[in-house]
Amino acid sequence: MANNFVSFTNVDLTDGFFKNRYELNKNVSIISVKNQFEKSGRFNAMRFNYHKTGKAPHIYYDSDVAKWIEAVAYLLLKDRKSMKEEEAFCDALIDAMAMAQRDDGYLNSTHQQMTPDLIFKDRSRHELYCAGHLIEAAIEYHKATGKDKFLKMMEKYCDLIERAFIIEKTAAFVTPGHEEIELALFKLYEHTKNEKYRKMATFFLKMRGIANEPMVRGDNRYYAQDDTDIYNLKEANGHSVRALYLYSAIADLALLENDEKLKENLNTVLDDILYKKMYVTGGLGSTHTTESFTKAYDLPNKTAYSESCCAIAMILFAARMRRLEKNSKYGSVSERVLYNSLLSSTSLDGKSFFYENPLEIALEEYAREVATPEKQRERLPITERVEVFNCSCCPPNINRFFAQLGSFIVFEEKNSLCIEQYISCNAKTAFGTLNIKEDYSTLGKATISCSNYLSDKISIRIPEWSENPKAYLDGAEISINNIDGYADITVKNTFELVLDFGISAKFISSNPSVRANAGRVALTYGPTVYCLEMKDNGNRLNQISIDTVEAENAITLTEDFHGIYSISAPAYRLKPQKALYYLSNADSTEKITAKFIPYYAFANRGKSDMLVWVRKK
Amino acid sequence: MANNFVSFTNVDLTDGFFKNRYELNKNVSIISVKNQFEKSGRFNAMRFNYHKTGKAPHIYYDSDVAKWIEAVAYLLLKDRKSMKEEEAFCDALIDAMAMAQRDDGYLNSTHQQMTPDLIFKDRSRHELYCAGHLIEAAIEYHKATGKDKFLKMMEKYCDLIERAFIIEKTAAFVTPGHEEIELALFKLYEHTKNEKYRKMATFFLKMRGIANEPMVRGDNRYYAQDDTDIYNLKEANGHSVRALYLYSAIADLALLENDEKLKENLNTVLDDILYKKMYVTGGLGSTHTTESFTKAYDLPNKTAYSESCCAIAMILFAARMRRLEKNSKYGSVSERVLYNSLLSSTSLDGKSFFYENPLEIALEEYAREVATPEKQRERLPITERVEVFNCSCCPPNINRFFAQLGSFIVFEEKNSLCIEQYISCNAKTAFGTLNIKEDYSTLGKATISCSNYLSDKISIRIPEWSENPKAYLDGAEISINNIDGYADITVKNTFELVLDFGISAKFISSNPSVRANAGRVALTYGPTVYCLEMKDNGNRLNQISIDTVEAENAITLTEDFHGIYSISAPAYRLKPQKALYYLSNADSTEKITAKFIPYYAFANRGKSDMLVWVRKK
Repeated sequence: MANNFVSFTNVDLTDGFFKNRYELNKNVSIISVKNQFEKSGRFNAMRFNYHKTGKAPHIYYDSDVAKWIEAVAYLLLKDRKSMKEEEAFCDALIDAMAMAQRDDGYLNSTHQQMTPDLIFKDRSRHELYCAGHLIEAAIEYHKATGKDKFLKMMEKYCDLIERAFIIEKTAAFVTPGHEEIELALFKLYEHTKNEKYRKMATFFLKMRGIANEPMVRGDNRYYAQDDTDIYNLKEANGHSVRALYLYSAIADLALLENDEKLKENLNTVLDDILYKKMYVTGGLGSTHTTESFTKAYDLPNKTAYSESCCAIAMILFAARMRRLEKNSKYGSVSERVLYNSLLSSTSLDGKSFFYENPLEIALEEYAREVATPEKQRERLPITERVEVFNCSCCPPNINRFFAQLGSFIVFEEKNSLCIEQYISCNAKTAFGTLNIKEDYSTLGKATISCSNYLSDKISIRIPEWSENPKAYLDGAEISINNIDGYADITVKNTFELVLDFGISAKFISSNPSVRANAGRVALTYGPTVYCLEMKDNGNRLNQISIDTVEAENAITLTEDFHGIYSISAPAYRLKPQKALYYLSNADSTEKITAKFIPYYAFANRGKSDMLVWVRKK
Repeated sequence: MANNFVSFTNVDLTDGFFKNRYELNKNVSIISVKNQFEKSGRFNAMRFNYHKTGKAPHIYYDSDVAKWIEAVAYLLLKDRKSMKEEEAFCDALIDAMAMAQRDDGYLNSTHQQMTPDLIFKDRSRHELYCAGHLIEAAIEYHKATGKDKFLKMMEKYCDLIERAFIIEKTAAFVTPGHEEIELALFKLYEHTKNEKYRKMATFFLKMRGIANEPMVRGDNRYYAQDDTDIYNLKEANGHSVRALYLYSAIADLALLENDEKLKENLNTVLDDILYKKMYVTGGLGSTHTTESFTKAYDLPNKTAYSESCCAIAMILFAARMRRLEKNSKYGSVSERVLYNSLLSSTSLDGKSFFYENPLEIALEEYAREVATPEKQRERLPITERVEVFNCSCCPPNINRFFAQLGSFIVFEEKNSLCIEQYISCNAKTAFGTLNIKEDYSTLGKATISCSNYLSDKISIRIPEWSENPKAYLDGAEISINNIDGYADITVKNTFELVLDFGISAKFISSNPSVRANAGRVALTYGPTVYCLEMKDNGNRLNQISIDTVEAENAITLTEDFHGIYSISAPAYRLKPQKALYYLSNADSTEKITAKFIPYYAFANRGKSDMLVWVRKK
């Protein structure tokens, strides 16, 4: 009895929308991040040799490096031969770490080299976060190579953590600032079956909101997800990535303990996100100041944080929830994130990245303050992707995500398979080898076939956006019984199921409580959210408005730069006026053709104004 | 040959819209500011006794006190008897200042008591700004009381300033950070006829943009109005109050030197403001970071700076421009400022003040960031007026402005009078005593009469908003020849001129280049800009939209709290929805009656959401 996604190790992506992204990640992004990490001194820091680059390590460096190693491990698992150079590179890195690891098991490049006095003393210093990512990397590296050196190092480190935090309680805190260790310990338990790690993870989770330890460095309990214990979660609060890592670990616990109350709790916070705190792109986090969720319906566009790491965290969390129960909202939100706020994180050439993914850019506002010294200016997100950040959590997280993308497509239920995402692949499953072939984001279609299927039904997730899905089984149309976003189809041992979800351009509105979007609409085409860019439409995009009914009936889809599909639609633009203020009956518009591009493709042609939520005429 | 406004000393306000404000200023605001200045240690600082309050003086304290003395002087000039207590208070204060003034003439409470080493060393420390305000106060106090002690102190101070800045050049700069000394020196010249002060003022003006001295404390040349010399002004840049004080002093110079080139230059910057950088309320300054103008059409509403001092500075500047030439734009902008961004500065009870006058408040945004420590939160203007600020330039500036309000109503031209503002008053002029009686902001009407008029014509400014002005001379309708915003009316020695400007509710639009206001309208009623408040309309004011034609034809005007007139109009509100995102064809609205109040009256009933620019349906 599986009740889990088919692992990427058994899934080969085939030609299609995401295969390109997978290859780009493997061949360009991972190498680009590697080069940047060498240049920025991250690898040397981890080799305990930071003097060579001359840059002091930062408290999150170990996690950056660990996520990159984890990404390499996933690729080694799929194709060890092609990644020989990276394997040797990792081996050497691991050797250096082994040399540096303290006799008591401690391993942290910043604390050992820079601030040994602060070891386990300050919950805000990312120690257990770094440890968690190192543990995840070690597990995957062991799986991929069979080499257990790194894994054993981490097990030794875990012994120390258990002593310091749980047995002897010499550590100054029990609720680490940035969650991650909890996830990692559950994974280590799953990999080693050693109950100790499960207990440790459970300990950290159950201390949260209970320990009442002092907040440091301006943290507050909301920011730190320390305002309530894990059994009383009411709404999504605080640092959004940390929150979702916490929820993911709680989902692991709920599965292990078969805890209905925890599952309900997690659905409460997830619903709070889905119905009140999520950008239409699936982006999460409305403010940069603490990279946090804010209040319900507070979704400002220009200052949207929508961190790339949080897009990944959302998919990791949703996948865990899917193991807890079959509910189409998990696949739906994953699809929304995948095609929008996650894809937007990376440039179309794979070389550069966004940390934040805003939903509006007005370049004029970036240059508004002639008289203001640079440092005092209003803080707005960057307008073009860059190769590395000072705090560079997102790029290697993107690396490791795309390397394991295959793990989010096909779900093995007790008696059959369930298709969660329409991504072209061959998936080796307990019920036979399944083939998915899609034209999903362009034509809204997918074909699922199998020649040795060991069940009599297959379950498919019906996309939220599909109003009238059609299915053709072995050439004949069949009816679809859409029950809460899923349909079960009775199939034979050999079958070909053609799905046509009826894609079309649709303008959508936001809940009227979203102040920023009142009177505005966003163009969607199947799973993809579209936006306007200055490059295509001139600046001052707020001058453009849409008659949604007219526009939906008159769109043109065109293959465009980098193979993306742009959409042209009739629109209206306010005509220029001379006066600063004038009687409103003098307003006049001219008819234009507005050109929309997928949100994920914005900022790939230089700096540009951009707008997702366009005025409704 | 006058060519000047009739001075407030010859103008008695009579019952009407502004008489109340004048009395409130005299009887409440000035006393309120006095009490706050005593409490905050400002007066003790100026008595060189700051230890008594225990608060170190700040570099702008002297100017706060000076503006308050200036306000008292204006009131003494009108009604010396009723202000005896304040006169004695000022005398004692002046005695204390005299005791503290250095033998060389220097007088500055902060520098003498706190930072003597920095005297005349740092252009950013407001020394000459404070000196300028003290000079203005001394002049007015001399005019009001005949006592010349304060004036002589200031003349001695000016001797030192001349030596240090012009003759011996021992001062470290020649372009003071915050303009004001220039204005004050021209006023001192006008009062004493001593050419020295005119030359000093001219010197400081002509050094600007020329001296190329180092900027300090993060100032840059734009911020400091030091990016160009005064003969090459192209656009309004930098700190908006400083800029307008500079432009005002340049206007004084242009008048004294009859310099057409300077006048043209000033019109260039004024037009840049009027056609590209002014809020509909007449507010100026689009960013708090440097209290500055930003780029053309950049007029964000929630973060509008629109400093109260700048409203005053705009009227002072416009009045000087009116002396340079007859152009209705000067009176128009003064009216816009007067009824909106200036009136909004003070609570309807006269006790508290705004420094910033935003055009939108969404209280939810003030509480948005649960997880963010207070200090890191996004910076937004305060939502209720307060009695005193740490930097409290605005309240005493408001005091001194309303005390001299009579000086901006009637202009004496060479051969006749010109009515610039419709404010009820009796004005003793060179052409006889004129009476103005208005119902201007409510009925759009005013009656001008005189029984001993010594000219055969009177000039009236036609308000910008008046589409079809009507005039009735001695009971009979006459035609109005509106030439560039003025009409000359032929009158007899005794006349009664009834003007009906045809007031009505009008929705106005912003230039389409104003990003913040695309698709939005503001309700105006004659000179008054209106707004929505949560108190009357519920929160999330962005849910409300207006069919402007329908609304303009169906308004109701009602006397409301504090005697203001509110306007009710049909409007539409988006109906609640459950989903966060939904197909836009499911948008629906319900008809409501929206209640607008004058912008100047916002935030008089507790904290509230507020919106000037409402969505156009």
